[in-house]
Amino acid sequence: MTISLYYFNIRGFGEYIRLLLIDQGVSFEDYQYERFSEEWEKLKKTMIFGQAPCLKDGNEEFVQTGAIMRYLARKYDLYGSNPADAAFIDMVFECVRDLRAKYERYIYYSDETKENYDSVTLPETLANLSKLLKHCSQFVSGDKISFADYVLFEELDVANTTAPGSLNKFENLKQLHANMSARPNLKQYVLTRTTRINGIDRQ
Amino acid sequence: MTISLYYFNIRGFGEYIRLLLIDQGVSFEDYQYERFSEEWEKLKKTMIFGQAPCLKDGNEEFVQTGAIMRYLARKYDLYGSNPADAAFIDMVFECVRDLRAKYERYIYYSDETKENYDSVTLPETLANLSKLLKHCSQFVSGDKISFADYVLFEELDVANTTAPGSLNKFENLKQLHANMSARPNLKQYVLTRTTRINGIDRQ
Repeated sequence: MTISLYYFNIRGFGEYIRLLLIDQGVSFEDYQYERFSEEWEKLKKTMIFGQAPCLKDGNEEFVQTGAIMRYLARKYDLYGSNPADAAFIDMVFECVRDLRAKYERYIYYSDETKENYDSVTLPETLANLSKLLKHCSQFVSGDKISFADYVLFEELDVANTTAPGSLNKFENLKQLHANMSARPNLKQYVLTRTTRINGIDRQ
Repeated sequence: MTISLYYFNIRGFGEYIRLLLIDQGVSFEDYQYERFSEEWEKLKKTMIFGQAPCLKDGNEEFVQTGAIMRYLARKYDLYGSNPADAAFIDMVFECVRDLRAKYERYIYYSDETKENYDSVTLPETLANLSKLLKHCSQFVSGDKISFADYVLFEELDVANTTAPGSLNKFENLKQLHANMSARPNLKQYVLTRTTRINGIDRQ
């Protein structure tokens, strides 16, 4: 069964899914569209919600990042080992997703500024995450990788790029970023990646 | 073990959790705070992220609506019967949550207007949900209630109140709202509920 991802030609939310599939050694078709292009507008009409990211797995079609990531987590055993792990993984995922939403507020809207994001929103969230993960070892949920590790890795990487030095105070987050960067499939992928972080080339 | 919910004295995101617990007959402490009050500011500092909603179950503390709802879903068997159900339930939940986020854009921010929300955002999302749920019977996932039913019920109810008539075209959504309204615990609760929909008393 072929897995196909439909997303824009940027990192954005689609990158979480790409990182998970690449790290897990799952081959998939990575269809990348220019937002607002004719090609995308045409495809949109054939899709369940006209939304991206969209994942097709055989005849099944999934939308919504939070649903796609959890679908893949169940399929590839990336949701911890018990309900307590799952709840913790969900909390980390939702927290990182909130951070991303705030990042998008300043990229695409006007009620968040780069100044406030870099000096308040980002450091406060990183401090919360660092506290939440104070007992974490190699990954978010002990020594077993989970779907939250991919989203956290991506957002730490974005923070590293858009606000250099922002991770310096948080040893455990830096370590998690390093652990993820060292995974062979991810290491190779990141080295050759050319997609932009967001859709308007602004950091 | 005591379950305690910490949230503001409004419906908001906390209402999803209240509806689930009330419908399931789970007794819980419903701590309601005035946003920006001294009492809340004091409590905030003792909490894991200083965020609401926050749920405590015995010694465990959970934040993030999406994580709390899924924790309760696993605990009370409200996540469907198999991975395919779970993925579908997640999609509905995320879609409703997105709608809520857009509703909050016009309530608390300025990049969404009531006019656009009522004439574009809301009807488009309701149409998507109605299409997604075209095969649903009594509940989102067949005849078994799931955590997505509570969030959908709440947002359909909000739509009914803030944009009267908005559900008229969507028979299956109206039916789902009616099915939920008829559940004894919810029926009784809704009749006596006095909390406002949002925090600034604007619809």
